[in-house]
Amino acid sequence: MLLERINKPEDLRTLSIEEMEQLAKEIRQFLIEKLSITGGHLAPNLGVVELTMALHTVFDSPRDKFIFDVGHQSYVHKILTGRMDQFDTLRKYKGMCGFIKRAESEHDVWEAGHSSTSLSAAMGMVMARDLKGEDNRVVAIIGDGAMTGGMALEAMNHIGHEKKKMIVILNDNEMSIAPNVGAIHNYLNKIRSDRHYQKAKDEVEHLLKKIPAIGGSIAKGMEKVKDSLKYLVVSGVWFEELGFNYIGPIDGHNLPLLMETLRGADKVDGPVLVHVVTKKGRGYSPAEADSLTWHGISPYKIESGEVLKSAGPPFYTEVFGNTLIELAKQDDRILAVTPAMPSGSGLLKFAKEFPTRMIDVGIAEQHAATLCAGLAAEGMKPIYAVYSTFLQRAYDQVVHDICRPKLNVIFAIDRAGFVGPDGETHQGIFDIGFLRQLPNMVLMMPKDENELRHMMKTAVEYNEGPIGIRYPRIAGRGVEMTDDLHTIPIGSWEVTTAGKDAVVLAVGPMVEIAEKAAAFLNEEGIGLRVVNARFIKPLDKLMLNSIAKEHIPVITMEEGATLGGFGSAVSEYYAEQQVFDVHMHHMGVPDYFIEHGSVAEQRLEVGLTTEELVAAVHKMIASRHNKSEFRSVQQA
Amino acid sequence: MLLERINKPEDLRTLSIEEMEQLAKEIRQFLIEKLSITGGHLAPNLGVVELTMALHTVFDSPRDKFIFDVGHQSYVHKILTGRMDQFDTLRKYKGMCGFIKRAESEHDVWEAGHSSTSLSAAMGMVMARDLKGEDNRVVAIIGDGAMTGGMALEAMNHIGHEKKKMIVILNDNEMSIAPNVGAIHNYLNKIRSDRHYQKAKDEVEHLLKKIPAIGGSIAKGMEKVKDSLKYLVVSGVWFEELGFNYIGPIDGHNLPLLMETLRGADKVDGPVLVHVVTKKGRGYSPAEADSLTWHGISPYKIESGEVLKSAGPPFYTEVFGNTLIELAKQDDRILAVTPAMPSGSGLLKFAKEFPTRMIDVGIAEQHAATLCAGLAAEGMKPIYAVYSTFLQRAYDQVVHDICRPKLNVIFAIDRAGFVGPDGETHQGIFDIGFLRQLPNMVLMMPKDENELRHMMKTAVEYNEGPIGIRYPRIAGRGVEMTDDLHTIPIGSWEVTTAGKDAVVLAVGPMVEIAEKAAAFLNEEGIGLRVVNARFIKPLDKLMLNSIAKEHIPVITMEEGATLGGFGSAVSEYYAEQQVFDVHMHHMGVPDYFIEHGSVAEQRLEVGLTTEELVAAVHKMIASRHNKSEFRSVQQA
Repeated sequence: MLLERINKPEDLRTLSIEEMEQLAKEIRQFLIEKLSITGGHLAPNLGVVELTMALHTVFDSPRDKFIFDVGHQSYVHKILTGRMDQFDTLRKYKGMCGFIKRAESEHDVWEAGHSSTSLSAAMGMVMARDLKGEDNRVVAIIGDGAMTGGMALEAMNHIGHEKKKMIVILNDNEMSIAPNVGAIHNYLNKIRSDRHYQKAKDEVEHLLKKIPAIGGSIAKGMEKVKDSLKYLVVSGVWFEELGFNYIGPIDGHNLPLLMETLRGADKVDGPVLVHVVTKKGRGYSPAEADSLTWHGISPYKIESGEVLKSAGPPFYTEVFGNTLIELAKQDDRILAVTPAMPSGSGLLKFAKEFPTRMIDVGIAEQHAATLCAGLAAEGMKPIYAVYSTFLQRAYDQVVHDICRPKLNVIFAIDRAGFVGPDGETHQGIFDIGFLRQLPNMVLMMPKDENELRHMMKTAVEYNEGPIGIRYPRIAGRGVEMTDDLHTIPIGSWEVTTAGKDAVVLAVGPMVEIAEKAAAFLNEEGIGLRVVNARFIKPLDKLMLNSIAKEHIPVITMEEGATLGGFGSAVSEYYAEQQVFDVHMHHMGVPDYFIEHGSVAEQRLEVGLTTEELVAAVHKMIASRHNKSEFRSVQQA
Repeated sequence: MLLERINKPEDLRTLSIEEMEQLAKEIRQFLIEKLSITGGHLAPNLGVVELTMALHTVFDSPRDKFIFDVGHQSYVHKILTGRMDQFDTLRKYKGMCGFIKRAESEHDVWEAGHSSTSLSAAMGMVMARDLKGEDNRVVAIIGDGAMTGGMALEAMNHIGHEKKKMIVILNDNEMSIAPNVGAIHNYLNKIRSDRHYQKAKDEVEHLLKKIPAIGGSIAKGMEKVKDSLKYLVVSGVWFEELGFNYIGPIDGHNLPLLMETLRGADKVDGPVLVHVVTKKGRGYSPAEADSLTWHGISPYKIESGEVLKSAGPPFYTEVFGNTLIELAKQDDRILAVTPAMPSGSGLLKFAKEFPTRMIDVGIAEQHAATLCAGLAAEGMKPIYAVYSTFLQRAYDQVVHDICRPKLNVIFAIDRAGFVGPDGETHQGIFDIGFLRQLPNMVLMMPKDENELRHMMKTAVEYNEGPIGIRYPRIAGRGVEMTDDLHTIPIGSWEVTTAGKDAVVLAVGPMVEIAEKAAAFLNEEGIGLRVVNARFIKPLDKLMLNSIAKEHIPVITMEEGATLGGFGSAVSEYYAEQQVFDVHMHHMGVPDYFIEHGSVAEQRLEVGLTTEELVAAVHKMIASRHNKSEFRSVQQA
């Protein structure tokens, strides 16, 4: 095995081309085997084996800096930088991160998880380099999907203007997670595949060589058109007009060509864009055939490509997709808008059923939000299907274009709460805080997958402005699905378990945890009331008023940041009402970033468990008794 | 006066070209006169007189929909749609809004205030139109500065792909608020002004006509290159490659040409981009000569162009700019990064002194943030100078690229709190909530302009991750400036007025208001302690613990959203400590959008005043006494 001899990038440089090609095969075999057990981002990594090898051979990491956009295509980089033996722990609790991680290696110079950030980061490193008078190379590696995110385009506008030396590798595989869309994608397609265009270019070059023979005056004119002629003989005019030197398109699986091209790019004094065409899933036929499914994959059988699935209740995402179809059949104002996540957001069936009412805008969270605002302003009912973590990117648009003019946009906020193996870059824990502070916003979270359906009905019937439903990445509770969809009164909570000694106001999946705690405490003779606090905003003020009169401990429980979260909302309400004698405890996500692992491990780490809730109830009841006794003593 | 005859867009269509040109003059005169008294966005509106008239003549508003990007260039539109008599109240409390406002007129179909949103909104309206089977036109009017904002580019990628019928007017005046920068700007410059390029194009066209004479085989080849030749004979290839039909550049002050061009654009079946060149400030020489100053202007003398300034202490913005120069002289890691606001952020002097350390990225808030992250990752000390309201647009980058990897980026958050006449789109009231919930973030606000300087010193010396200073749009208090800059211990508050009966934890300019209340209450024999809560995060826990032991009412006061704000942070802390007997009252901005007016009027509307604080102290002390008495009765 050559692979066992590669512990650091320098080791690559001792290999012949034949050995490198052998190594590429071994790396693919390694990834296919390891990921069949752990799961992970298989297809993107199979696509960049040769590219990553070429980068580490031609350039000198960590002196030269590689900035991988998103970073889930960094497995080959991890193998080549001494982390081969950590793949058994990939994306597991306390194990190796599925993205670039500065703490893991000096070769990991930039962390990401969200797309389209690499060009900005690289430009920052380039400017720092030049100010410090250093001369290392900075190489950003970005996919064609990520390239059309707004901030990547902002960065190109800046980079093309400044003309500083840097290399951008455009890893063009025609996919982000889903097949790419958009005008820039169409343009790349044209460069990449239009033989007619290539032939035309050749013929123009031939023509140009002949022209001087036909006469002096035209030949003279030719001088003046020279500048314009790059439009005919240079590919990538669009990039050239932005100030980049364009090289490509080249075959991203041809190692000698890749290395030669990278060496050429390094000689250019200014920003260069190298257009590399790769195939996602390369070398493993199930992944080549269906790179959408194999983008991020669960454990699978290598020979058949069969993905191992555990049986169980449907995921919230799936229930969302199915219910949307139901609703859309009855109401033709309903549209779905997604920023490049049709599959992840459970919209593939909807897209098949209502192709004209499914809008995939590509990686463009900001545009997607304001597009919804425009649709709503004209009477449609757009549903913005987005992950909690990506909604952060459309925050200004939510504030300024949707909440402020009070437009009827529905937010379907998937992956709210812990997300498991994707870890800290993808946790959906801030949306409660950043949404609930916005005027005109209504925000819900269902206790189970059936309630999600009624919340969707509620959202569609609501006409007073924006309304959001957040739901988790996990499977539902397996509850029965009711036939008819009904609306839920805005701002109404429900008691799911009665109890007189303490009350827990639980949000979403915390209701199930709280019910278990209540059952446990019931055995001890302690009555814990469980409230399904299904509206995060507005609060159920009637219920809060009535609870305040009972003088029992109140615990809030949410899978979101404690700072500014739902618990704070309850405290704020009592402060506003000048109710001072409620003993309150907030359970939520503490003030640090929670790393990868399973959702259960993440909940355990922060104490969002039945055990911790039971302990909290014990403690609060005890402290109350102590205090009462203390007071009694005083009074006596 | 022709102007008096124009009450609605139809009235324009009765005019001859000569009359229209006369009307354009009258509109300019009207704006110059009215704004000399009220102030407002003069230069942008003088630039679009003919364009707005042409739009309202050729198209049929409100059936046809005009979407003005940002919307501060809508004054001509307001005049032509029956709002001429409201200009005396422009941007004043309860008066006419300085932006497009749906509540004001059926002709105002899209509201904005932040840039680059118009294309997304227009595309939403186009998609709604087509789904509903209607046939109205949708016209977006966007500046060349706004065009390079990421979300506008995301929208173009989508629009160019979908190929639906719509018109985009690119209002190219080479300026956003400051002179534009960036590669797209360079490209527009080239189209607009390069005579050589124009001439080359003409000559190639001439050449092409001649070529067939030289022989059959080449003529045949010509067929095949035809497709490529559009690069030579069509301007705006960059837009054409994105799927737009490009028309222009045309003179934006030539009314007949504008109308003819718009009629032509309307015949195109698909997205058209009409490139219109205008001059900001057109027709008023002081504004033409310095459109930066005259972008948004205070009242002025018409004849001299002298801007009326009230004497007084320096504005926080100015103190920021001066102090940054001081600090940068001593530390060459310091850089300033601005998204197209060098003047508004007080950076013009800095830019002159340190041209290589001043980075204006154009309207690109997201890129600016992650650029800072890249700079910080390489050991620089970038200062991201941005308005609170625009920082919303970089929220995901702050979370994901700066807080998560804990990079030393300094946020200089100007216009925090109420902003006065710009109103609801620009209020800086959400940043406390959306920033304080992020792990690793430190957030400060100074009580006066001198403390701002020490906070800047503190931020530069801090090496534990991101740190932000928010400061208001207003003038400072006129305090003495100390010579030496010192650092302030992180998380430390200070008592500025002693008092034993109640305590107010005041943030930023609220300290001054609180001190006045304390002085007033002192006369009555009530001791109100004023705490300068200069760290919003982390809190001064020692001081909070000590206050809790005193059992006196605690009032928090901040010019920010009450939901999730600083007051909630204090409540959260006490809940975490299981301290239940603090009587707390939160004063802040209530849960609705606050419209334009003066800062004083805005504070009055929401009760952030000395009078309201005095009333709150009275009430809390009284209620405490009542309760004590009540308890005594019970106990007895």
